[in-house]
Amino acid sequence: MQQIIDFILELDKLKAVSRKVRPLGLDRYENSAEHSWQIALMAASLASYAESPVDVPHVVFMLLVHDIGEIDAGDTMVFVEGGWEQRKAAELASVTRIFGLLPPAQCAAYLALWQEFEDAQTPESRFAHSVDRAMPVLLNLNNKGQSWRENNISYDRVVRRVAPEVKAGCPSLWDYLAPLLEEARHKGFFAA
Amino acid sequence: MQQIIDFILELDKLKAVSRKVRPLGLDRYENSAEHSWQIALMAASLASYAESPVDVPHVVFMLLVHDIGEIDAGDTMVFVEGGWEQRKAAELASVTRIFGLLPPAQCAAYLALWQEFEDAQTPESRFAHSVDRAMPVLLNLNNKGQSWRENNISYDRVVRRVAPEVKAGCPSLWDYLAPLLEEARHKGFFAA
Repeated sequence: MQQIIDFILELDKLKAVSRKVRPLGLDRYENSAEHSWQIALMAASLASYAESPVDVPHVVFMLLVHDIGEIDAGDTMVFVEGGWEQRKAAELASVTRIFGLLPPAQCAAYLALWQEFEDAQTPESRFAHSVDRAMPVLLNLNNKGQSWRENNISYDRVVRRVAPEVKAGCPSLWDYLAPLLEEARHKGFFAA
Repeated sequence: MQQIIDFILELDKLKAVSRKVRPLGLDRYENSAEHSWQIALMAASLASYAESPVDVPHVVFMLLVHDIGEIDAGDTMVFVEGGWEQRKAAELASVTRIFGLLPPAQCAAYLALWQEFEDAQTPESRFAHSVDRAMPVLLNLNNKGQSWRENNISYDRVVRRVAPEVKAGCPSLWDYLAPLLEEARHKGFFAA
């Protein structure tokens, strides 16, 4: 019991990990804990649109743990180029430490979920990636491109980075986003 | 698809619903979205301690949706006395509106989950309540009783309100908390 409680209290630190997008109508940046909650529900709600049939609880559990590596490694915007391997190694060290607070069987189960998300080879992890990539796009589309403009991200860069992952796990989600991104370009939501 | 996206964007508002406890080490108050994430993982991690065997994904889904009624109704501390029925009616109106953004079958499924939590009659909902009640206690135990002291909550009031629900769904979690609460009383973490 104490091991599980130590783990749960350690999770509190994800509430302090700041992302680049702001919740709609709020002045502060989103944190990775509330983001994880929102995309878990997004995945559960959109599951019938997944590219292949998915085990919905498995996707939800994966999304609940997928950002825990940021507790030690911090959040890095998906558009940052270079340093990807070092960041992934830092996140792996972080989840190894944090899941290691748990009894061995639970540690192994959460590590496997985290690794499955990273590898993005299963239908569940591909769908989880689609949802994770699409959520900040949805917020930006409703936020006049706030994090794109603040971080000097162009339309082409968003499409190049987001389209392949969203399409791979949830093609109709990409079909939904593509015309909205095109419209946002004309509205000036992106860096030039 | 548009209905589901409207629902997901509406969920963003739960990030603005402030609770009474502060995340460990942070100056701000916790919000109900990040709280929902944390207790979903707490339930998944503690499930083997539930009073009766539980369907873990069912508990997790219930906890992910259980606070959505606060989007229109706000969060009320569990120790507030009186006005309970009006608050519950306001939350029901809120979830009826928000889940009503979804296609009918999904709306019905989420409403049923929300109602099951409120009714606290199934093993899953009793266990979900245990976790929901215990989490702010754990934070307060590690926060020098911050929200108890700020809101003038006594030891007796915490035990009277928290013990029955934690015991009903997860007796060994209460066995874990009881001596820590006693110790916290001696440390002056409560209002007199």
